[in-house]
Amino acid sequence: MPLDPERERLADLERRSLLAEQARQQAHHLRTPLSVIKLISETLQLELFDDRAYHERLQRLLGAASTLSNGLSDAVRSTRFGDGPQKRLDALSVAADVVRLYGGRVVAPADTRSAALGVEIERDSFEAAVIHCLRLLGVGTDCGHPWGHRPVLEYREGDGKVILRLSVEGRPNPEIPSERADLKLMTLAAERAARDAGGTLTLTDESATFLLPLVAGSG
Amino acid sequence: MPLDPERERLADLERRSLLAEQARQQAHHLRTPLSVIKLISETLQLELFDDRAYHERLQRLLGAASTLSNGLSDAVRSTRFGDGPQKRLDALSVAADVVRLYGGRVVAPADTRSAALGVEIERDSFEAAVIHCLRLLGVGTDCGHPWGHRPVLEYREGDGKVILRLSVEGRPNPEIPSERADLKLMTLAAERAARDAGGTLTLTDESATFLLPLVAGSG
Repeated sequence: MPLDPERERLADLERRSLLAEQARQQAHHLRTPLSVIKLISETLQLELFDDRAYHERLQRLLGAASTLSNGLSDAVRSTRFGDGPQKRLDALSVAADVVRLYGGRVVAPADTRSAALGVEIERDSFEAAVIHCLRLLGVGTDCGHPWGHRPVLEYREGDGKVILRLSVEGRPNPEIPSERADLKLMTLAAERAARDAGGTLTLTDESATFLLPLVAGSG
Repeated sequence: MPLDPERERLADLERRSLLAEQARQQAHHLRTPLSVIKLISETLQLELFDDRAYHERLQRLLGAASTLSNGLSDAVRSTRFGDGPQKRLDALSVAADVVRLYGGRVVAPADTRSAALGVEIERDSFEAAVIHCLRLLGVGTDCGHPWGHRPVLEYREGDGKVILRLSVEGRPNPEIPSERADLKLMTLAAERAARDAGGTLTLTDESATFLLPLVAGSG
């Protein structure tokens, strides 16, 4: 079976999205203790200003805290992903392409006007988010089950929003090892993509539902 | 094109290997500044022992340093990958399976005795390492070039070692964006897998060469 360039492109987005999310989470969780260290060291340094020996040691301590802080920021910067400009995208057609590429089908109401599904979203992170959701539903990660279950994308719109619902047919009980760090990062990265577009993502065992605001003038 | 379960399994190993490597690198780089912070705070705490106000603040500072330290260790622990037991594997056949799965071919000398290629290595991390090397040679990552170049695995053995050399045919000038963080992590993870098996990995623009020691009695 030859490599599919489009699938490889998406796998690449997927990897980069996870690494970026891991770096962001790490930086986020370590920011609070790091500012405690900086704050205490700085006030001690002020109070012990006259004592040169203390001053120098606190200076070294602050230097080490800066190194830590820079290390965390560098990790975020070097894995930067999906922070390009948000553009108006046909969210349905982007999601549909990803779902079809993974062997899925799209359920469309008869009166679809594709132009009505314009959403302001960053493309790479949205594509990665759709794949993350498919993984979370078992596509390529459901080690305990036979292959062949099929992703389904349903959508509807209304009230200035579009709803894209992903699920998987033919698999009664997913066995996703949800404690795995990579799957947690998938959840976080997919939720972030929805949030960055002003929307939400709701994940259950059976489905992943994006609720995204339509851009003004397209409703 | 249906999903290939084996390729999806390898893509999963690949993702987990990268996340584990990122967590390890992060912990490694932040360990030194973190011990500076701990050491200085501890000595200050001893010296300022009589002053209760200082003591308490230094205690909070040390608490924050512990939180940081635990955060880094947790990230390493939760992404743990490829730290299962090393087992005796037929390294050639494992690498050959991966290369063939990515459309490649294997060049074998006529007098191959497969039993002679026993290497003590952890299977998941070795499989991930082989894919990382293919990516670094452009398979699925070479955005600037037409598809269709083909991986090649060559090997020879001698002197108690096996040499597995990966390259790609039909691609004169790879255009790999080597500054990308994910590709750096691929390099580090693949080198680590080789090192953990007591061997080395040599990466150039054109090839990736594993030099792995054969286990005693199989040479």
